[in-house]
Amino acid sequence: MKYRLIEGGGVTAPKGWLAGAVYTAIKKRENRKPDVAVLYSEQPASCAACFTTNKFCAAPVILGREILKKGKARAVVINSGNANAATGEQGIQDAKAVQALAEELLGLGKDEVFVSSTGVIGQRLPVEKVMDGVRQIVPMLSADKGSDAAWAIMTTDLVRKECAYELELSGGTIRIGAMCKGSGMIHPNMATLLSYVTTDAKVEADELQKMLSAACDKSFNMLTVDGDTSTNDSLFLMANGASGVELKTEEDKEAFAKIVEVICVDMARRIAADGEGATHLLEVEAYELPTEHDARLVARSIAGSNLFKCAVFGRDANWGRIMAAAGYSGADVDPTHADCIIRSAAGEVQVMEDGFGTDFSEELAKKVLTEHDITVVVRFHQGEGSAKAFGCDLTYDYVKINGDYRS
Amino acid sequence: MKYRLIEGGGVTAPKGWLAGAVYTAIKKRENRKPDVAVLYSEQPASCAACFTTNKFCAAPVILGREILKKGKARAVVINSGNANAATGEQGIQDAKAVQALAEELLGLGKDEVFVSSTGVIGQRLPVEKVMDGVRQIVPMLSADKGSDAAWAIMTTDLVRKECAYELELSGGTIRIGAMCKGSGMIHPNMATLLSYVTTDAKVEADELQKMLSAACDKSFNMLTVDGDTSTNDSLFLMANGASGVELKTEEDKEAFAKIVEVICVDMARRIAADGEGATHLLEVEAYELPTEHDARLVARSIAGSNLFKCAVFGRDANWGRIMAAAGYSGADVDPTHADCIIRSAAGEVQVMEDGFGTDFSEELAKKVLTEHDITVVVRFHQGEGSAKAFGCDLTYDYVKINGDYRS
Repeated sequence: MKYRLIEGGGVTAPKGWLAGAVYTAIKKRENRKPDVAVLYSEQPASCAACFTTNKFCAAPVILGREILKKGKARAVVINSGNANAATGEQGIQDAKAVQALAEELLGLGKDEVFVSSTGVIGQRLPVEKVMDGVRQIVPMLSADKGSDAAWAIMTTDLVRKECAYELELSGGTIRIGAMCKGSGMIHPNMATLLSYVTTDAKVEADELQKMLSAACDKSFNMLTVDGDTSTNDSLFLMANGASGVELKTEEDKEAFAKIVEVICVDMARRIAADGEGATHLLEVEAYELPTEHDARLVARSIAGSNLFKCAVFGRDANWGRIMAAAGYSGADVDPTHADCIIRSAAGEVQVMEDGFGTDFSEELAKKVLTEHDITVVVRFHQGEGSAKAFGCDLTYDYVKINGDYRS
Repeated sequence: MKYRLIEGGGVTAPKGWLAGAVYTAIKKRENRKPDVAVLYSEQPASCAACFTTNKFCAAPVILGREILKKGKARAVVINSGNANAATGEQGIQDAKAVQALAEELLGLGKDEVFVSSTGVIGQRLPVEKVMDGVRQIVPMLSADKGSDAAWAIMTTDLVRKECAYELELSGGTIRIGAMCKGSGMIHPNMATLLSYVTTDAKVEADELQKMLSAACDKSFNMLTVDGDTSTNDSLFLMANGASGVELKTEEDKEAFAKIVEVICVDMARRIAADGEGATHLLEVEAYELPTEHDARLVARSIAGSNLFKCAVFGRDANWGRIMAAAGYSGADVDPTHADCIIRSAAGEVQVMEDGFGTDFSEELAKKVLTEHDITVVVRFHQGEGSAKAFGCDLTYDYVKINGDYRS
């Protein structure tokens, strides 16, 4: 499999994808950060999506599930600052109004436009502002504006999250790009957020959906920032075929499925690293559990433990909390022969071996935990199940950010 | 049912119960807070207990489950500062050594003494210190020292947690007393902690167990401080019959079961109010769900939501987060006609009515949330299931306390 990262690439790196974004003051912002974005394909695209499992899903999610049934779409309108969630029938009407306007201005048919919203729950969508944004953006859609769109969808995110890759297939080169936003209310399933993956490969919707669901299981569904599953989580994958390249062989299919996973994991790591208030990216690798399911439970439980996350913030190698989190994960897990290593660019320290705490160097542990990216490896010698989860530490700033989010 | 609170009462308020505590420097403490306690009954006692469901349970829990099979015991040795968890076979041996010494010094038979430990996970129990503590305490056991024991078992708790009640039964008056400690690593099931309930009523072990399990379901299993289920959670109920009063009638049994629930809820509320870093006690009442199970899921999910807990800390009536937490609780919950009220001694504010956010006064909401004790009431109009959960807010101090707990 031959692929490479496209420097500075995002959702408009693949052929035939345009974007645009403007500031409409949904929330007053001195820096006039854009808050409405449009992502558009110049030709029809197959689409796949994964949505939140929260019972109180937002209006855009309800609408999105309907559109997804057709497996075809051309565009997405996204706003930040208001989630259009817990807004009842009015929220659906508002989402449909935005959708209808975009379809009209883009010259598309009915239900060819998805909408997405992120921000405060329970307040009516400022629909006039969003529609005004759409009116401004449509005439200036461009292949240069992917990064503006990535900026527009941010809420409490500190950095834009976008990337793109180029992949060689038997019939030629395709591109795949992505943008996403976190950064609180992120927990499996699924782990966030708004995330958009575009490609110019030619792939049918049902195949796309299988690949996306599998990739989501390895990435966003293994991501936790705060244990709160959002009402708005949406992950889209849209393929417009503009490269003219199809998935002809089994190798092509495997390579494309893999690149979808790569880009989803890339996005999930960026979201974890930029979790609200986070000062550490935390990756947890669980090995040799009875089943993959057990390994997933263990990895996510450790990555999501408030106590361990505080310890990471405090640069304290408190491995007892790691094991406690494994123990209450619900997995079939036996501590008798457990090993645990904490690793970073500064080195690694084995804190538990064959079921017992080791006499490790606290000084080295502190050094290891000083790095931004921390990996915890646990191994249980019970079977062949393994999994990886993504998270971050729990800090003063998480509390600060969420103590006055609405104000 | 006639009962009254005994002012200043605790585990030694019931007849025939003695206690004692000393400082043995398991952790160095300038104020020489006691860290080993013994609780002792002058006569044999029936016993019941509920233990943690964490797979990596601590040595005292493993030992306790064995003792419980007999349904009889006379004493408990408790230490704070070290959890004797993740300590393997050595931990079991250490726990047994403490047990054996206490049995010898108290003149008891084999397996008549429980042990409990709370504190850091993964470090060997300083068994000589604990045994030294037992040697000092046994000669000075007294009915006046219940409060010393309640102090000794504290870790990051800020206040002692103890209470006692007197209850009139058909055959006379009985007493029931309790002490417990939180305050982090508290989450269902079960919700903490170390908790000891003593009584001088005469009740058989199997009946005690039924009553305790039912009470635990209404109290400690509905309590969440941080989502982390401890390795050491233990709740004991011991009845020595020293009052000579039995449960003769159905009314007696109901009244006694009720007082067990009252004392467990009392303890659970105290733990929530003293949650690590907490500035608010949070009670969540969920009504009119399809089943009680659904109501329990909803109430606990709201009480445990990091995002909502931060909002409470910030005195922000962010009801969207309440509804989001209900939505991801796993319960069969429908937001269409949901009502939500936030209430305190300062008044109440209805933030959601019949599925929609209301135009409530932010000023009043702020005032309501300024009080220490906050109650959130959600009502779904779907059925007759109701439940109540106990929690606290998430604050800077929670992060601070757990960022350097070991040091």
